[in-house]
Amino acid sequence: MTTGVIVAAGRGTRMDAEGDKLFLEVDNLPIVGHTWHTFDQHPDIDEVVLVIREEALSEFEDLASKITPIKPYSFAVGGSERQESVRNGVKAASGNCEIVAIHDGARPCVGSETISSAILAAKKHGASVAATKIVDTIKLSDGNARISQNIDRTHLWSVQTPQVFKIDTILEAMDAVDSQHASVTDDTAACELIGQPVVLVESKRPNPKVTTSADLPLIQFLLQG
Amino acid sequence: MTTGVIVAAGRGTRMDAEGDKLFLEVDNLPIVGHTWHTFDQHPDIDEVVLVIREEALSEFEDLASKITPIKPYSFAVGGSERQESVRNGVKAASGNCEIVAIHDGARPCVGSETISSAILAAKKHGASVAATKIVDTIKLSDGNARISQNIDRTHLWSVQTPQVFKIDTILEAMDAVDSQHASVTDDTAACELIGQPVVLVESKRPNPKVTTSADLPLIQFLLQG
Repeated sequence: MTTGVIVAAGRGTRMDAEGDKLFLEVDNLPIVGHTWHTFDQHPDIDEVVLVIREEALSEFEDLASKITPIKPYSFAVGGSERQESVRNGVKAASGNCEIVAIHDGARPCVGSETISSAILAAKKHGASVAATKIVDTIKLSDGNARISQNIDRTHLWSVQTPQVFKIDTILEAMDAVDSQHASVTDDTAACELIGQPVVLVESKRPNPKVTTSADLPLIQFLLQG
Repeated sequence: MTTGVIVAAGRGTRMDAEGDKLFLEVDNLPIVGHTWHTFDQHPDIDEVVLVIREEALSEFEDLASKITPIKPYSFAVGGSERQESVRNGVKAASGNCEIVAIHDGARPCVGSETISSAILAAKKHGASVAATKIVDTIKLSDGNARISQNIDRTHLWSVQTPQVFKIDTILEAMDAVDSQHASVTDDTAACELIGQPVVLVESKRPNPKVTTSADLPLIQFLLQG
């Protein structure tokens, strides 16, 4: 059994003035509704856990009535940090869950085939993440908007979500973060602590994260494509 | 006087099967025609040099009759490598040129305000480049599609074009590349050789490079925005 864990507990600090970015609407449906719908409809996903802020529960219940999910779903309460939110989501998966596909609620454009490929890779290797190769030249700045160093981009990837794991693996990795008091940037970094390799799965379609309302026309365009 | 140098001498190896990517059409105008038009219409640009493959001359002459440029323009012949093409373009600028704005022909969506900001920064500091801050998590792969290392993205920028220089500065930098037999990845890297700082100018609008025909719907969308 494979569980989609949609992380939707952030408030999107960059858009505070405009409210919660996840509830900005595209084609009469909030961003996070598009994300949920994609996971709900995906043939490889058996259930969906939405990690939300407690006070947003009624909004998400309204959303459920709008998208009428065909797969079972449940809500988990987010933590103060992303890592805590992810953990709460993973722990809310059903008892017979083997694979968790963790995804940003603010990435509604993720391709169905990207989800499939990432799940397949995680089943085979234990952990995977959707990513794109870096194609532009990358420079390190001196922190003052001047170039200080050229970076070899040959093996650089920009990682996104979904990040997919065997559930036992990600739980073990999270425990390692705790017991080692480690600070990790994301769930794949947690895997490094237990020596679990993470496979990069190329995202063939643009899979941007909504960060400001200025992104909405592009998101709408991508959702229609 | 400020000269726009549009580098349009590549054949776009990834799209060979489909012909020259620069001549793929969006809204009845080739990609490179959109780029040329943007520079031609820009208030800070006084003339345009197009660096082209010799055999493409008649195509570019046809293009000129389509976009009816209001600024003087000329053609320079491209070299076997990008650096050589850029140099030929810079050397084809008029004698009273002080600033050169070097731009990829395959980046038709560049914002007018990005061109202005980059020119302003180059006038003030000698060299600038349009760029965007890296917002996704960046990983180094082991060359075999597995994550080998987490990269701190705090000061990472993805650089694009235009790359803008005082003409004396870029010519000096190019001479340094020659005399030191240096291999540089781009024109800003050449500046490092002569100790010329390069200012990063944030590109506020998406400024992608067309690499395959699959990019065209997005390019069309961005051009209309």
